[in-house]
Amino acid sequence: MATSTLFPAEIEAWRTQIDDALTEYTRFDDDCPRHLADAIRYCLLAPGKRFRPLLLLTATEMCGGSIEGAMPAACAVEMIHNYSLIHDDLPAMDNDDFRRGRSTCHIQFDESTAILAGDALIPMAFEVLARDIRPDDIAARCVLALATASGPSQLVGGQADDLGFQFSPANLESLERIHRRKTGALIAVSLEMGAMIAGASPEKLKSVIQYGKHLGLAFQIVDDLLDLRGSQDKMGKRAGKDAELGKLTYPAVLGVEESELRAREVAQAAIDALQPFGDSARPLELLARFVIDRTQ
Amino acid sequence: MATSTLFPAEIEAWRTQIDDALTEYTRFDDDCPRHLADAIRYCLLAPGKRFRPLLLLTATEMCGGSIEGAMPAACAVEMIHNYSLIHDDLPAMDNDDFRRGRSTCHIQFDESTAILAGDALIPMAFEVLARDIRPDDIAARCVLALATASGPSQLVGGQADDLGFQFSPANLESLERIHRRKTGALIAVSLEMGAMIAGASPEKLKSVIQYGKHLGLAFQIVDDLLDLRGSQDKMGKRAGKDAELGKLTYPAVLGVEESELRAREVAQAAIDALQPFGDSARPLELLARFVIDRTQ
Repeated sequence: MATSTLFPAEIEAWRTQIDDALTEYTRFDDDCPRHLADAIRYCLLAPGKRFRPLLLLTATEMCGGSIEGAMPAACAVEMIHNYSLIHDDLPAMDNDDFRRGRSTCHIQFDESTAILAGDALIPMAFEVLARDIRPDDIAARCVLALATASGPSQLVGGQADDLGFQFSPANLESLERIHRRKTGALIAVSLEMGAMIAGASPEKLKSVIQYGKHLGLAFQIVDDLLDLRGSQDKMGKRAGKDAELGKLTYPAVLGVEESELRAREVAQAAIDALQPFGDSARPLELLARFVIDRTQ
Repeated sequence: MATSTLFPAEIEAWRTQIDDALTEYTRFDDDCPRHLADAIRYCLLAPGKRFRPLLLLTATEMCGGSIEGAMPAACAVEMIHNYSLIHDDLPAMDNDDFRRGRSTCHIQFDESTAILAGDALIPMAFEVLARDIRPDDIAARCVLALATASGPSQLVGGQADDLGFQFSPANLESLERIHRRKTGALIAVSLEMGAMIAGASPEKLKSVIQYGKHLGLAFQIVDDLLDLRGSQDKMGKRAGKDAELGKLTYPAVLGVEESELRAREVAQAAIDALQPFGDSARPLELLARFVIDRTQ
């Protein structure tokens, strides 16, 4: 993938490990209907950036934890991310038939299977955390953090407001309120879980979460810019879809140039939050730069 | 409610406590959009039997645990049950516009809100377990048990097979395979969590789960009978809907009389599984009888 060269070889190796672990987690028993298993695998095992799992593992390493010990949480956050993509693409939601260069789940299978595949991925994420994160108190803290980030005030609330944004004023505040929850919460919790599993101090945990909040915002601004300007090849989804749906986006509110500037500012704020970590923060700095470089 | 008189006054009191706790758990902050909060409350706080939470608390008491300590788990299982009702009623699923005598969520609100309300209830359940069940190792065990019961091989798998049952032979084995997962898993895990929170021994836990499996089956057989014969008043949903959809049901496979007999046999097997508990099993015995008495 084009993104690979921005990461050190070590992080590249994690991507393969993540894919392998996700493959293991989707070896279902006979009680899982074949077409449901196929739909879950079609979405979860599709080639992807694995951005959130990589963030999580990078935070773990930065805080001196074990990659192997954090891998279940990396998989859990990717499961939640994938469920949200599947449900966001549904006809009653964003009605997208194309994602990452492939048919979306309800097009490839059918609508009920797509609803059920998303429904299955949510408890799968918590099952993985509860069974495979050790010790139990860290598992419980990870469940709490991921559940909160996936809940009605964060991921789902952001998506609900994004769908019904006509009820909000079209200003920067409304926009950042939506994306802090719709995209930001899951990115921030990835970093938070990675640091928690490594036993990070409360101060370091705070820095990592701060980085995550800024990074999530930068990520969303760039996503909006890519949607506006990008080709279908680059985005793997139909370009200009957001504008077509009349969605509230950064370029629509701030203009393209101001949006690019804002993305850079926010990415820099993310990097600044990592100061307590010194040189060990280098990989997360590279990740923040990678997010910005997607615009080019 | 008509069901009340079958329970000792003590269990009646729990129902109010459950409703109060669910009300507390749905006091959302400002980050939860109003219409999403309204939809979640509309469904979760609707008058209901609270069958699964009552089972859970009854198991807790039978095993000598604290009702207060188990209440978060009672709420969690009701959240998962409610999400499954909301999503099962969707147009792409069973397409029901009437449930418990009221409009279903997608009729009362809209389809995207119903999808999102269901999506929000799943992580809410795990958030409640991880935050409010103590100690952490019991919280982690509850998360694991509820997540497994809600996952692709249990609740979601059963629903997927129920929707697509035309791929299965219409025999008793297929039917019980569907309902062991679609209805049975959540009923069994309610009892399992209640016993776990009370610190039940592995032997007692096994008896309780065994009771739960039989009870879940009895519950489903009676549900099928009620759907066939019941009036809209009694069921709160359109009678004969299952037959209309060509669903695989017990009366369709076994006939009405044989189905009634099977329900009684299975309920008796549930009661028999409680032998190790002696007199303290009396409330769960009453519950099993209540399930059967719904046919009358």
